[in-house]
Amino acid sequence: MNVDKELFETYAFYSGVLVVKVLVMSFLTARQRFKKNNFISPEDGAKRSGVKIGVGIDDDVERVRRAHQNDLENIFPFLFLAFLYIFTNPSLATATLVFRIFTGARIMHTIVYLLCIPQPSRALAFMVATLTNLYLGYKVITYFM
Amino acid sequence: MNVDKELFETYAFYSGVLVVKVLVMSFLTARQRFKKNNFISPEDGAKRSGVKIGVGIDDDVERVRRAHQNDLENIFPFLFLAFLYIFTNPSLATATLVFRIFTGARIMHTIVYLLCIPQPSRALAFMVATLTNLYLGYKVITYFM
Amino acid sequence: MNVDKELFETYAFYSGVLVVKVLVMSFLTARQRFKKNNFISPEDGAKRSGVKIGVGIDDDVERVRRAHQNDLENIFPFLFLAFLYIFTNPSLATATLVFRIFTGARIMHTIVYLLCIPQPSRALAFMVATLTNLYLGYKVITYFM
Repeated sequence: MNVDKELFETYAFYSGVLVVKVLVMSFLTARQRFKKNNFISPEDGAKRSGVKIGVGIDDDVERVRRAHQNDLENIFPFLFLAFLYIFTNPSLATATLVFRIFTGARIMHTIVYLLCIPQPSRALAFMVATLTNLYLGYKVITYFM
Repeated sequence: MNVDKELFETYAFYSGVLVVKVLVMSFLTARQRFKKNNFISPEDGAKRSGVKIGVGIDDDVERVRRAHQNDLENIFPFLFLAFLYIFTNPSLATATLVFRIFTGARIMHTIVYLLCIPQPSRALAFMVATLTNLYLGYKVITYFM
Repeated sequence: MNVDKELFETYAFYSGVLVVKVLVMSFLTARQRFKKNNFISPEDGAKRSGVKIGVGIDDDVERVRRAHQNDLENIFPFLFLAFLYIFTNPSLATATLVFRIFTGARIMHTIVYLLCIPQPSRALAFMVATLTNLYLGYKVITYFM
């Protein structure tokens, strides 16, 4: 199997950005945990006073966790689909555009989620990214059928 | 590194189907959320009346979320393992069979889960897919050791 | 696109180990569920007496689930980043070292988590793995930019 070098490089760059974006969510969760003194395991807050242990206690912590989970559910599918997509002979311009739209929509999704910007902002960011994923899925399935 | 074209195409097709299957879970969750009026973030139900905000409130919403989460825990591992597996020189017939069994078992898993079909149906679907994953893992680890 | 055979084989081996490690978490969760009689769906415990159905009821079950979730959030990103990283012309020695450090740190993370070993053990295991991921992310983004 061969793939165009530039297509692969474009895929690799946007994938790198998206995975690092997912990793950053862990730090944003940790930041809220320290700020709101809400940890998840009994051993985590042993040396702090007034610690709340558990899930679902602090709204700001849960908000970051939901944004993180939404990334797992949508960015990982993109990374698989986009990789297979570059083997379907797309033009470099189309692939770059699609990868940029997805990356932009998912970064917007997190910003909108964490800043509590009113709906339908988050629904829109989600739909743009999901429609991109479904487009890639359609291209992959029909090409390799 | 080279891989047989037909093996890669078979992998790409079943991967495309499985990833789209995972993406569909988001829509099934949204459908239950609107049906049961149970949303996850305060800003989501701002314009509806009688909205319940939170996790763990509605059994039907939670059921779809559990099926979705189970997909993340099992389908993503398959996508990685099956990709590495096609580089271990399997026969096309074996690989196709293994990919079909896994895809069928995971689609069955979701159907059984969402329709509340009594156990051990779900346990069986889960085990068929997981044993397939462990088989692929064994092949990959021993081949590349 | 071409990649060194030995680099790919090293990647494939450690990826196989890590994915199987993630799959094992399902069995560790099931073990705690049977031990503590705490299942997640009403149909699961139909034939057992004294069954508790739900999430967040049993601390030992939740602990395994958190370790599992943490794997999804960190091991899957590694599998994507490490794959792209082997196309950035790293030396085989460096790549092997990086993959070993990550694999060791994530196995330690689970051991420390499940045995409730006091902090900062888990924080350290987490940070070693996450810094490795960020290093790979940095290498991938700068190389393919």
